[in-house]
Amino acid sequence: MKTSYALRRLLSNNYSLQCQTKRTFYRSFLRQTVPLTSVRYPNLKRGGYSALTDKDLSVFEKLIPGRVLTGSSELDGYNTDWLKTCRGSSQVVLRPKNTEEVSAILKYCNERKLAVVPQGGNTGLVGGSVPVFDEIVVSTQLMNQIISLDEISGTLVCEAGCILGNLSDHVAESNLIMPLDLGAKGSCHIGGNLATNAGGLRLLRYGSLHGSVLGLETVLASGEVVDCLSTLRKDNTGYDVKQLFIGSEGTLGLITKASILCPQKPNAVNVAFLGCDSFERVLDIFKESKMKLGEILSAFEFLDADAIAVARDNLKLSIPIDDTFPFYVLIESSGSDGTHDEEKMNGFLEDMMNRGYVIDGTVASEPAKIQYIWSVRERIAEGLMHDGYCYKYDVSIPLSHYYGLVEAVRERTQGNTTRVIGYGHVGDSNLHLNATSPEYSQTTMDLLEPFLYDWVAKHRGSISAEHGLGFKKRDFIYHSKSESAVRIMNQMKLVLDPNGILNPYKLLPTVVR
Amino acid sequence: MKTSYALRRLLSNNYSLQCQTKRTFYRSFLRQTVPLTSVRYPNLKRGGYSALTDKDLSVFEKLIPGRVLTGSSELDGYNTDWLKTCRGSSQVVLRPKNTEEVSAILKYCNERKLAVVPQGGNTGLVGGSVPVFDEIVVSTQLMNQIISLDEISGTLVCEAGCILGNLSDHVAESNLIMPLDLGAKGSCHIGGNLATNAGGLRLLRYGSLHGSVLGLETVLASGEVVDCLSTLRKDNTGYDVKQLFIGSEGTLGLITKASILCPQKPNAVNVAFLGCDSFERVLDIFKESKMKLGEILSAFEFLDADAIAVARDNLKLSIPIDDTFPFYVLIESSGSDGTHDEEKMNGFLEDMMNRGYVIDGTVASEPAKIQYIWSVRERIAEGLMHDGYCYKYDVSIPLSHYYGLVEAVRERTQGNTTRVIGYGHVGDSNLHLNATSPEYSQTTMDLLEPFLYDWVAKHRGSISAEHGLGFKKRDFIYHSKSESAVRIMNQMKLVLDPNGILNPYKLLPTVVR
Repeated sequence: MKTSYALRRLLSNNYSLQCQTKRTFYRSFLRQTVPLTSVRYPNLKRGGYSALTDKDLSVFEKLIPGRVLTGSSELDGYNTDWLKTCRGSSQVVLRPKNTEEVSAILKYCNERKLAVVPQGGNTGLVGGSVPVFDEIVVSTQLMNQIISLDEISGTLVCEAGCILGNLSDHVAESNLIMPLDLGAKGSCHIGGNLATNAGGLRLLRYGSLHGSVLGLETVLASGEVVDCLSTLRKDNTGYDVKQLFIGSEGTLGLITKASILCPQKPNAVNVAFLGCDSFERVLDIFKESKMKLGEILSAFEFLDADAIAVARDNLKLSIPIDDTFPFYVLIESSGSDGTHDEEKMNGFLEDMMNRGYVIDGTVASEPAKIQYIWSVRERIAEGLMHDGYCYKYDVSIPLSHYYGLVEAVRERTQGNTTRVIGYGHVGDSNLHLNATSPEYSQTTMDLLEPFLYDWVAKHRGSISAEHGLGFKKRDFIYHSKSESAVRIMNQMKLVLDPNGILNPYKLLPTVVR
Repeated sequence: MKTSYALRRLLSNNYSLQCQTKRTFYRSFLRQTVPLTSVRYPNLKRGGYSALTDKDLSVFEKLIPGRVLTGSSELDGYNTDWLKTCRGSSQVVLRPKNTEEVSAILKYCNERKLAVVPQGGNTGLVGGSVPVFDEIVVSTQLMNQIISLDEISGTLVCEAGCILGNLSDHVAESNLIMPLDLGAKGSCHIGGNLATNAGGLRLLRYGSLHGSVLGLETVLASGEVVDCLSTLRKDNTGYDVKQLFIGSEGTLGLITKASILCPQKPNAVNVAFLGCDSFERVLDIFKESKMKLGEILSAFEFLDADAIAVARDNLKLSIPIDDTFPFYVLIESSGSDGTHDEEKMNGFLEDMMNRGYVIDGTVASEPAKIQYIWSVRERIAEGLMHDGYCYKYDVSIPLSHYYGLVEAVRERTQGNTTRVIGYGHVGDSNLHLNATSPEYSQTTMDLLEPFLYDWVAKHRGSISAEHGLGFKKRDFIYHSKSESAVRIMNQMKLVLDPNGILNPYKLLPTVVR
């Protein structure tokens, strides 16, 4: 177990290194290469917010002494997103330690009409967690206390700045797991996960955060603290107000604490990595896995040949089976009885081989091997960065049309991209489509958008399955949401943040129909 | 299978009979015995809504020809709740067939400032689904079409008036189950389940409706149709507006259609019915069942000796084991492999017997026996009605204090009640506490309230775990929700229903702090 643990830490730390420890190294690089968002989008106008003054800074210094960052080199990492596609020009980062400090900061900013961007681990992929202009960054980095864990009910209560991986380690000691898991777990904050309604690798089994979050504490723009920090699984006393904040991307309030239901830790985990010869076979295997693995099925992922090439060529990872198949499937089972689970998995795989659905495959039950197989899947996002610029899409498409989008985009952008790859959570109808080129190209972008969003809307999909809308996708909201729904969103925004200071230029569209 | 199916239908039909088929029989009875709510609560004032006129009736008749009920005997069942504790004096029931008709009705009522109560199967337990004064009843009875079922993803789309039991039967043909199950399934409507965020027997395994509902179509008071009828499991494009309506008890909009994720139907079900000698043992068994049964645990219910007496004496049911234990536990497992599941269940029970946690017990895997055991648990609510009047409470309490409430209430109301019983979903910290007396007694009520709610609040529980607030419990909302949360609820109400025509006197408190 110890070896595997070390390996897992090593893998997840790749993200930490890129996002945090290596920040110094990247500083000058970031400033040179990432254009300011205000320059890349010259038609975008700054809202009528106040400009930061020295007096504001001295007020902040009084509210949170020693935790007001202003040095421009210190601010680079907070101004730039992980994908290096968005850069703001904030002059100050505030690092409150508790809810009261957040409340005092927001109250002041609201009265002064200073715009604010809440920031967690800054691992978002749609430009939602960095300033667009000069918004003040309020970071949850120092709000990282675990408050309680009830072992019988499985309820964890913690502050918003806790790193997801640390929470996983903590609850594992009580034989529990976090209900979500994702590649960025080494640096993403739980508050950011909640604000973006993060999906990830375990959604198929443990459902969405709308189900597993029991309570939230949130601070509104006015500084008012909204206490919905229930730890109860059932509480039907009025509207479920906390749901509004899950997935609101910091535009309705700043989440400060959460109470989360943690499932029992499985005693046994098995992972199968399979090669097959068409996407139809991927779907056949999925349908059969639901029947045969039933309650122990915990992940069903796929990768196409071009995604596998990223792992092999850019990351130098050795592919666990022959690397020439057009499609690969990763199936995970998690259960309470290793013998039963292996019987189920072996029976299922034997059937799949006999039917010719699976051509080749490997199964792992040793933690080290399991984690290696997962790393091939989880590190694709990192591997893509080696190509230069990455055009990143995260969509839901009904399974009947799922892979058609990759083929359509590949055909349309031929000659204008290094590669177009498809991979993701088939089990949730969620496709990660990524295209790369040596550097950002407006021609390529114009080929991709709005073509891709139109295609998704035409097939009744979602233009953002789990990444959110953030800055980059907000004006495509009508491709997935009705005008009546967006009108209600705007009404909620107006009620909860009448001055619009919270994360402006994000989520809600520029023009309301 | 056929016999068991017949038995199951028979059991669930008890509710239908009481609520629907026998309506004629009960008519005069209801009028004689159930006092008007306006009489029982003389201090309650009717809101400033318009009174129904003949002109209104002729407009309704044009909008939905032949589906406007006005005969007073026909209206009794719609005016009176299932518990026979609330009775309104509505003069008209409207039965639209589709969303467009609901929209036209609400638009007219909103312009005329006529108050409306949406009604599904009218099986609610807090007076939420019947008029308080003369509100117009809009029934979903005729909106009962199943629209689609995607067998691979498990997504069901249906109208709000579908009866839960019918939906269960329908999806079972595709090897799926509904993610919720409750005693009233023979007559409750899915729209009502969603509007009240119904919990029920499967929540432990399949989670809350906030997780398993993928989409909703709702009509606002203005008549505007809000289309959030997504069928996607992941769709992070803006605030999750549909969540607002789940659990809003018809006060924010009238749900017309829903899209619901249905889990795979288990191949094997086992039910154990166990006797033990203290509530501490019940908790020990629960903790162990989570470890040993893991992913196949699908229900963990308990009944105390007084609840068992209701089944035995009032319903004449034979108790599956010796009827002299102080506590009983019902454990259900559901899984994909009968042999594996039986091995797990037998191993677990052997361990529990060896440790002395369980004194006596029986296990069933035959459908007929399983359904009989379940009926002992599910029919308690019905059995209580034989005592006369039932004071009904449905609370969540952290497990460390869970049964203490039953003991406290029993002591406090001694001599003023026929019995005080405790049973319910231990697995979700959800307790059904019920007291009975031959008829309604204000003395008993004054002993129960606010004592019971204060006790729950003191122990950080919820005063309504799954039944909602409705008419009866709305003024206790502050026992479970913060003032800041209730303020937001009121703001949402004001935005979505500015004239307050939708289900007035329900959910929101009389006085806003």
